[in-house]
Amino acid sequence: MEDLKKFIRDVPDFPKEGILFKDITPLLQDPVAYQTTIDYMAYRYMKEKIDIVIGVEARGFIMASTLAYKLNAGFVLVRKPGKLPYKTHKATYSLEYGTDSLEIHQDAIKPGQRVLVVDDVLATGGTADAVVNLVNILGGEIVECSFLMELDFLNGKEKLKGVPIHSILHY
Amino acid sequence: MEDLKKFIRDVPDFPKEGILFKDITPLLQDPVAYQTTIDYMAYRYMKEKIDIVIGVEARGFIMASTLAYKLNAGFVLVRKPGKLPYKTHKATYSLEYGTDSLEIHQDAIKPGQRVLVVDDVLATGGTADAVVNLVNILGGEIVECSFLMELDFLNGKEKLKGVPIHSILHY
Repeated sequence: MEDLKKFIRDVPDFPKEGILFKDITPLLQDPVAYQTTIDYMAYRYMKEKIDIVIGVEARGFIMASTLAYKLNAGFVLVRKPGKLPYKTHKATYSLEYGTDSLEIHQDAIKPGQRVLVVDDVLATGGTADAVVNLVNILGGEIVECSFLMELDFLNGKEKLKGVPIHSILHY
Repeated sequence: MEDLKKFIRDVPDFPKEGILFKDITPLLQDPVAYQTTIDYMAYRYMKEKIDIVIGVEARGFIMASTLAYKLNAGFVLVRKPGKLPYKTHKATYSLEYGTDSLEIHQDAIKPGQRVLVVDDVLATGGTADAVVNLVNILGGEIVECSFLMELDFLNGKEKLKGVPIHSILHY
């Protein structure tokens, strides 16, 4: 699947100077590349009886919701504080400077449900770690955290120790 | 499809007092309801040769990206200002008080491509109108704006005059 990399565009100095941003919009807007990506990500879990796929606001909703459809699973949203309308649980995680939080609906996962966490990029692992905490609060069972790409030099894997992780592409 | 309404939860006073929010998260997290919704929305366009499906940040990404997959189309993101990394076009639309803007990548749509705009709710139509403007700037052809539900009393249809609209559920 290495040739999917040709659909990922480098944008220098985004979101701030010195950062080389990996832009996946060319992949998403190419029908064959997008379909291939989803099918390939799904293949690994087709026999895993996934109950719930979780996606994180905002870009994370894209591949996660599509995988939920493909895997005959439900789709659950994890959002920034104040965005979910019903009763929520919250998890806080650290950023370079300060902290941020994510929320999940209290009725989003039933105890024992098998959960797949999907996002486009694994960077420092802060977001994914917060999602894992939210799933644990609700008693869900994490099958794996699945990423399109992993930025190896940021060492997110270290933060997610003990959680199964899979990434299709590595940078 | 009226019975999909039983998966849509009324949340009073969200996001502010006096508003009865239609919460679609119970629908998304039910595998059968979610799959039925996507398949039913897609059915109308299966023979329409859709090139691109557009979704609007953030909740709009969910059904739009899944429909893109189902329709063998590409998926294009419309986002809030400053969120898209590459060169963009911008459209401004009015809110109750003041204005807001949305952006699209300049290379997101090729002239003549057939575009489906998908969102979960048609309310006042401000967002959808801005998306239609962005598609027009890029020379795309709007096949239809497709919504899961339409809040008829907000009269969004009036704002989108001349644009084909379809909604599965009405409130």
